[in-house]
Amino acid sequence: MKKVAVLLSGAGFYDGAEINEAVLTLLHISKQGAGYQCFAPDIAQADTINHVKNEDTGEKRNVLVESARIARGDVQPLSQLKVEDFDALILPGGFGVAKNFCDFANKGADMSVNDEVLAIGRGFKEANKPAGYMCIAPVLLPHIYGEGVKLTVGNDKDVAGAISSMGGQHIDCGVRDIVVDDKYQLVTTPAYMLAETPADADAGIGELVEKVLYMA
Amino acid sequence: MKKVAVLLSGAGFYDGAEINEAVLTLLHISKQGAGYQCFAPDIAQADTINHVKNEDTGEKRNVLVESARIARGDVQPLSQLKVEDFDALILPGGFGVAKNFCDFANKGADMSVNDEVLAIGRGFKEANKPAGYMCIAPVLLPHIYGEGVKLTVGNDKDVAGAISSMGGQHIDCGVRDIVVDDKYQLVTTPAYMLAETPADADAGIGELVEKVLYMA
Repeated sequence: MKKVAVLLSGAGFYDGAEINEAVLTLLHISKQGAGYQCFAPDIAQADTINHVKNEDTGEKRNVLVESARIARGDVQPLSQLKVEDFDALILPGGFGVAKNFCDFANKGADMSVNDEVLAIGRGFKEANKPAGYMCIAPVLLPHIYGEGVKLTVGNDKDVAGAISSMGGQHIDCGVRDIVVDDKYQLVTTPAYMLAETPADADAGIGELVEKVLYMA
Repeated sequence: MKKVAVLLSGAGFYDGAEINEAVLTLLHISKQGAGYQCFAPDIAQADTINHVKNEDTGEKRNVLVESARIARGDVQPLSQLKVEDFDALILPGGFGVAKNFCDFANKGADMSVNDEVLAIGRGFKEANKPAGYMCIAPVLLPHIYGEGVKLTVGNDKDVAGAISSMGGQHIDCGVRDIVVDDKYQLVTTPAYMLAETPADADAGIGELVEKVLYMA
């Protein structure tokens, strides 16, 4: 059975992983007959947002602990992820990626990436193992894969521009489609950068998971 | 377009709505071409559980605010739900139902139901509109529908026994199947009372949503 490491950045799209994307990722891995293990860094969230009002609550929450809400408790610290134990890596999106995995939300193209996340991303690249990044998560890819990496975040001109200035090659893409960088076995899809309904997100994420597992 | 009211009890199965069940409910409503609106009571959670350790953290959280994490912010207070605006009602499960919607988790068959939740459940019954309850949520049904209501929570003998002593008629059911009480247009499925994988939960929840929408 092929096994996928899934990286979560919290639980809730304003300050953590986009919950729908995370669940649909696990669903499609499961429907394809593959296995998964969820991981998250054991670090403080950058902030905690009231999702009704989109306001900072000032609460202190932990990325690993909140991610466990999605994974029914079964999430391991990212420090324990061994690349050799997995066939592929998948990152759902959400502001958690842009706030907890890197600081793109505040710094745009001047962002830096969390050391553990960077090391794991590069570990899968160096092992020539496929990876899937969805929604806003592809902003990490120029730092991980370097100059010329092909990816999509949909059609957001500001984010695409920032990615270009970091060295990435952005390709516009519809919500139910994927972009594949064959050189790196790297798959991206817009998900909730564009999705209007769960069925939209489901279609693109299903394509991403299928392609990643095919290459694994 | 048929429209479903979805009741959430938080975000995370130990103290709120089961996140996978909630997302899969919204997914199947969307895939069937129907619409939905999420609702949650504006009340304090009974407790807040660290989902890594399954330990009470002592934090105070609000059911409406945490539910909004699943619904990308678009959740309304349960007090604003008007039965006439919807064709059907669906409740995902999770301990949030057994702790925030009623006190089954502490009191078993001696439980009582939150007034707002009870009124809405009875409102859909009295309007002869279909409803779907999954996972542990069917423990509410003897209070809402009364003596003899047919339902399932899978095959858990303790929960089934408590339901029987409250007047419900429990029918054992596999994770990918549903139980239908035709008299009340009421559909139940075990979901994570039995599911071992997201694909299991998806199959049963898909059946439930399809049947509820067919009757709506």
